[in-house]
Amino acid sequence: MAQQHLDESTAGEVLAAHLRAQATEFLRSLRLHRESTTDAQGAEESLEAARALRRAARRIGGTLHTFRPLLDQEWATDLRPELAWLSGTLAREHAYATRLERLLDALHRLSGAPGVPPPAAAESVAAPAVPAVGRRSARRNGWAQPSPQGADEQGGAPRGLTVGAAKAAALLERQLTLARTRAHSTALQAFGSSRFHAVADNVAVLASEVPLSASREALEPLAAKAESNLAEAVAALPLGQAGHPYNAEALVHGLATEAANEAQDAPWLKARALLRLHRYAQEVLRAGDDLRLTDAGHALDRHREAADAASAAASAARTPRIAPATAYALGVLHADQRHEVEAARFDFHQAWLREAVRTP
Amino acid sequence: MAQQHLDESTAGEVLAAHLRAQATEFLRSLRLHRESTTDAQGAEESLEAARALRRAARRIGGTLHTFRPLLDQEWATDLRPELAWLSGTLAREHAYATRLERLLDALHRLSGAPGVPPPAAAESVAAPAVPAVGRRSARRNGWAQPSPQGADEQGGAPRGLTVGAAKAAALLERQLTLARTRAHSTALQAFGSSRFHAVADNVAVLASEVPLSASREALEPLAAKAESNLAEAVAALPLGQAGHPYNAEALVHGLATEAANEAQDAPWLKARALLRLHRYAQEVLRAGDDLRLTDAGHALDRHREAADAASAAASAARTPRIAPATAYALGVLHADQRHEVEAARFDFHQAWLREAVRTP
Repeated sequence: MAQQHLDESTAGEVLAAHLRAQATEFLRSLRLHRESTTDAQGAEESLEAARALRRAARRIGGTLHTFRPLLDQEWATDLRPELAWLSGTLAREHAYATRLERLLDALHRLSGAPGVPPPAAAESVAAPAVPAVGRRSARRNGWAQPSPQGADEQGGAPRGLTVGAAKAAALLERQLTLARTRAHSTALQAFGSSRFHAVADNVAVLASEVPLSASREALEPLAAKAESNLAEAVAALPLGQAGHPYNAEALVHGLATEAANEAQDAPWLKARALLRLHRYAQEVLRAGDDLRLTDAGHALDRHREAADAASAAASAARTPRIAPATAYALGVLHADQRHEVEAARFDFHQAWLREAVRTP
Repeated sequence: MAQQHLDESTAGEVLAAHLRAQATEFLRSLRLHRESTTDAQGAEESLEAARALRRAARRIGGTLHTFRPLLDQEWATDLRPELAWLSGTLAREHAYATRLERLLDALHRLSGAPGVPPPAAAESVAAPAVPAVGRRSARRNGWAQPSPQGADEQGGAPRGLTVGAAKAAALLERQLTLARTRAHSTALQAFGSSRFHAVADNVAVLASEVPLSASREALEPLAAKAESNLAEAVAALPLGQAGHPYNAEALVHGLATEAANEAQDAPWLKARALLRLHRYAQEVLRAGDDLRLTDAGHALDRHREAADAASAAASAARTPRIAPATAYALGVLHADQRHEVEAARFDFHQAWLREAVRTP
């Protein structure tokens, strides 16, 4: 299917068409984002536009990396880290919002109250002065807003939660909301910076004329390299262990340093990054969706989110002067999220095995 | 195989032979236990004798229950709870010792130090004035003895442990050692009680002459009832969920009340008790070992031990004036043990499926 198309055009033409399409999407999302942030009702649109912007930036960056020999090398080499900076900056706000939602959901689940309806009063609670990202989910969960004094001891217990869980929820909400607010400010600053304008100018160039090199190299070998890089990274993962349920590996450093967890998670994060590059290369080849690869990617996304959430719980537990009940709840929460990490590894293993069956 | 034997003798004869053998084992263990407790070097033998005594008491009690129609009913009905009281009293000391060992092992594992050698100084630490049960394992783990003041804040950090984990270890060691000491005293008192002597006298009767009833009932239907009771209890378990790895069910009440956990665990504990009765009935029929049933039983044993350990961690976290780091470590430990509960359910599910394949 991909072959049929590639036969009709040169590698450079296919690559240029893909980059032009992604650059156009980037510019469209950027325009939408600008319009929505000046509109008071546009919080939802702004969120969606930022997501589309990040999505396009990641794809352009990945394509520049994988197919660099076909492009003006210096230009591609310079632009890629700038795109990574931009998508990273935009991603942070979203990451804090989803992290908080994940942790609050987990606290509810751990309190044995999965289906608890939000208290009727929650909708009338004054919205905090933070960006809209994630506020909806926090409200959906029926959480009281953290007390402005920031005192851990003052949180009331939302319905269905023990005192410890409620205090842990209030503490996490306060810390992650603050982080989100800062990330939002940083993102706004980024949009106004000359660095950002330089990126946007470069992407605008892409949208009209892709700077190709004189190379006559084909796309397939470069895409195959992305795939073999992924295969190599996956081969380095402890997949045998991950495939054995309840192997208790992810929590092995549950009480050790954060650095120990990070070292354990690093090869999985690397596999996640390489899986993305592989997927983006497949998109250039118009190879069609591979559901197994999508599942494997989702498992690695969940791995990263759970690892970050576990880390946030551990970090919150190091807050001075918290009550023992709060610390206990954060300990349970940390372990729960590390088990989510382990479950994600198990899921990845399952998805990857399916993948291995398909490719000979 | 069992059939062949039963054809040659009446049900009463088979039952009587089995009960005589178990009663003889009971009396032999009791004699060994008495001899070893008067001997200063006999701690290990005393432990082994108590285990054999409990083992025989459980089998006699289970047999009296399942095959009651073949026995003097009033006598069997009176003796069974007395045997349960005895084995329960003897089991408690052992249970506290294994619980402590399980929790200390878990704290080591959670600190990422699974193969850590015991500190050289540990062997020279003065042994506490507690029974020998479990002391060896605690020493093997290289744990400092809890400080006599009982102050949570004073525990040093054994090698490879964070401060929180070390304090949690010291707290658990203190609490469970105290419980073990009390259980030991209670067991000693029990051995000296007239209630115990009445049990021993009854078992001595069994060893010489089993009080059979006039019933001509066969063994098989009674054993089949024990099996169907088990099947019924297992059918009531959420096996579909348990067979799905990382279902996060066991921790659903991780932050709720202990009563919520107990309610969730109750059907599994019931299945465990009925699985034992079934196994003991199979022993009477001399049906041979069923490895799948043994595996299922081990999974349910692990379920109970992990549930009790999780409960002990939660209970320790309610100790007044503990440090937040201690509470955090206990939270991680609690969640870890509840995941062990979930893993045990998964293992039971796997073993039980194998079982179902065998029996048509």
